[in-house]
Amino acid sequence: MTSPAVAAQSLTPAAIQAAYGLIQPHVHRTPLLTCKTLDTIASTPQSTEALVGTLFEGQTPARPQFRFFFKCENFQRIGAFKARGAFHALLRLLEERGEEVKRRGVITHSSGNHAQALALAASNLGIPAYIVMPRISTPSKISGTQSHGAEVIFSGSTSVERETVVAEMQAKTNAILVPPYDDFNIICGQGTTGLELEAQHAEQARSRPLDAVITPIGGGGLNSGVATWFSDKQTRVFGAEPSFEGADDCRRGLQAGKRVEAVGTLTIADGLRTPVGLLNWEIISNEKKVEGVFAVTEEQIKSAMRLVIERMKVVVEPSAVVGLAVCLFDENFRRRVEQEGGKDGWDVGVVFSGGNTTVEAIAKLFT
Amino acid sequence: MTSPAVAAQSLTPAAIQAAYGLIQPHVHRTPLLTCKTLDTIASTPQSTEALVGTLFEGQTPARPQFRFFFKCENFQRIGAFKARGAFHALLRLLEERGEEVKRRGVITHSSGNHAQALALAASNLGIPAYIVMPRISTPSKISGTQSHGAEVIFSGSTSVERETVVAEMQAKTNAILVPPYDDFNIICGQGTTGLELEAQHAEQARSRPLDAVITPIGGGGLNSGVATWFSDKQTRVFGAEPSFEGADDCRRGLQAGKRVEAVGTLTIADGLRTPVGLLNWEIISNEKKVEGVFAVTEEQIKSAMRLVIERMKVVVEPSAVVGLAVCLFDENFRRRVEQEGGKDGWDVGVVFSGGNTTVEAIAKLFT
Repeated sequence: MTSPAVAAQSLTPAAIQAAYGLIQPHVHRTPLLTCKTLDTIASTPQSTEALVGTLFEGQTPARPQFRFFFKCENFQRIGAFKARGAFHALLRLLEERGEEVKRRGVITHSSGNHAQALALAASNLGIPAYIVMPRISTPSKISGTQSHGAEVIFSGSTSVERETVVAEMQAKTNAILVPPYDDFNIICGQGTTGLELEAQHAEQARSRPLDAVITPIGGGGLNSGVATWFSDKQTRVFGAEPSFEGADDCRRGLQAGKRVEAVGTLTIADGLRTPVGLLNWEIISNEKKVEGVFAVTEEQIKSAMRLVIERMKVVVEPSAVVGLAVCLFDENFRRRVEQEGGKDGWDVGVVFSGGNTTVEAIAKLFT
Repeated sequence: MTSPAVAAQSLTPAAIQAAYGLIQPHVHRTPLLTCKTLDTIASTPQSTEALVGTLFEGQTPARPQFRFFFKCENFQRIGAFKARGAFHALLRLLEERGEEVKRRGVITHSSGNHAQALALAASNLGIPAYIVMPRISTPSKISGTQSHGAEVIFSGSTSVERETVVAEMQAKTNAILVPPYDDFNIICGQGTTGLELEAQHAEQARSRPLDAVITPIGGGGLNSGVATWFSDKQTRVFGAEPSFEGADDCRRGLQAGKRVEAVGTLTIADGLRTPVGLLNWEIISNEKKVEGVFAVTEEQIKSAMRLVIERMKVVVEPSAVVGLAVCLFDENFRRRVEQEGGKDGWDVGVVFSGGNTTVEAIAKLFT
C-alpha cells in the first residue's frame, strides 16, 4: 500500500479537476450565497466583554472587514458535500474494476452523512451497498440510508465494534471498502467544492481572487481536498473545529507537531467527532496548503447557527457553521484579517458542509 | 373615496407591470426553487387512514402529480414579500406628492412583517416612519423595526386600540397612513411576486405555462395581487388559509357569499390572523380571478413546515407553508389536480411568503 506521504504527492489541482469531470453529472452545483447582514455583523468589532478571560482581555478588539461567500453544500444531494466524494470513489472503482464492483458491492461504516451519500451513489450507479451503522444512530439517518436501497447492518458504537462488523460483512460478501475520508478518491471528490467555489466567486463579478476559504475539519476530507485545489493559487485555506472535549484534534496535533490519533467527544457538531485521517493530515499539516486551524466553543457554534437560520433563512447543521464561527469569534483570526486585509478587507469563502438536522434537534439545541 | 368595486377595475396586469418597473431596483428577485423530494411526497396518495373522519373516508385517495416551483419570498428583503408592497406604496407617494411625503412621514400599525417592510422602505427613501406596534409584539420584531430607523409607538393589541394610537399620532405628526394590505398600491406591489414567478418558471426551460399558483391569504394583498397578474392568463390562482379558530374567514366568506369582517384567532400562522380586506375581497371573490380558497389545520401547517426545513433546508415561517399544506393534505384540491392534470400533472407555483421566525419559535412549535 502507498504511504500517505507518497499518496499526498498525487493530490494536485489536476486530480481535483479530473474528479470534477467525472462527478459533474451526478451532483448539484450548489449556490454560492452572500448575506450583507452577516458581513456587517462579522465586520463589527467584538465587545471588550467578549474578550474577558481570553488572551485578548483588555486589548482593543479587532476591526476586520469580511465579505462572505457561502458555499451551500447543505443544498447538495443528501444534504451534504459527502455526495461528491462518494460518487467520485464509486465512479473510479467502476472505471478501474468494471462489472466486478457491481457483483461484489461496496461497504462502509458511518452513522451520518457518508452513509447516506454512499447509499445514494451506489443506488444511482447500480452497485449493492452495505452500510454498518451503530445501533444508536438517529432513526431518520437509518431510514434515510435504507431509503436509497442500501442494506443497513447494525453494530456497537466504538470504532473497534464497527470495524469488526465491517470485517465480518466483507468476509461474507466480498464487498469493497469505501472509507469516509482517509482516501485519495474521496478527497479528490470533496475538493471539487473548492473548484466550484472559486468559479462561482469569479462569476459574481469579483475582479479579485478569494482572499481565504475556511471549511470544517472532521476527518479532514473536505479541508484537504479544498486545500489541494487552492494549493497553486493565492487563496489562503483555513480549517475550523469544535473545541469541546478535545474535538480540536487537528489544531492540537499541529501545535504538538504530531497527529492526534484518537478523539472521544460528544460535541454538538456531530460530523466533526472523528480524528483527522492519515492522508488528510499530510495535506493539512503542510502549512503551504493549510495556513491555520482554529477551534470554537459549543456556544459559538450555536450563535453562528442561529444567525444563519434566522438571518439567512438557510438550514445548516452544527458542523456546517464552525468556519463562520471562527470568523465571528476567533480574535486571532479576526486580527489576521484586519492586518492582512486592511481597509479593503477579505473576500472569504465559507463552506456550509451540510444541513442534515431535524426540527427536534434544533429544538433541543435552543431550549 | 373610490369604492372597492370601482378601484378593483384598475387592478390590471398592466398596473402590476408598472409597479415592477418602479420597485425593481429596491427588491430582490428571489429564487424559484424546485425540490424533487417534495414533488414525490406530494405526488404519493395519502393513506386511507389520513382520510378517516373526512368527507373522503372510505374512498380511494387521489393520485395527483405535482411539480412544484417555490417562490422564495422568505429570501426577500426583511424576510417577506411585504417589502414589495411597502416600496411600491412609498415610491408612488413620492411620485404623486413629492417632498411633502418626506416632511410629513408615513405611519402604519402592524406587529409583523409589514412593520419592518415599511420601516426599511421609508429609511431607504429618506422618509420618516412611525410604526404602531402592540406592546406584546415579539422583541425581535420590535428591534428589527427600530433597527431600520423607524419610530415605534406602542399600543394595546385590539384593532380599536391600535387605530386609536394611529389616529393620535397622525393628529400629532400629520403622517400619511400606509395600510398593510387593503390598498391599491400595496396590492400592485405584492402582485409583482406573480410576475417574477411566471418569468422564472419560463426561464427554467418549461415549455408549458404554470398550471396553477397558490399563495397564503391573510389580509389578501399577496393573493389578490398575484391573481391580478394572472387574470389574463391560463394559470389558475388559488388561496390558502389556516382553519384554526375561524382564521379561514375568506373561505367561509366565499361559502356564505359575503365577506367575513372580523376574525379572532391565534393560529400559529401569525401572519394570517387578519380578515381579508375590502379591495382584496373584490378580487378574491371573483371566481374568474381566484378559483378557490382552501384551509388547513395547525398540524398540517407544522407537517409542511417540517418538510421544508428538513428536506429543502430552507427556513420558512408557519404562514408561508399553508399553500404547500393544501397541496399535501387537501383531498379536494388533490382530486382536482388528478382530474385536470391527469398523467401529465400540474406545474404548481407555491409562494413561500416569509421566513421570519426564530430558533426559539421553531423549538416551541416542535416540542
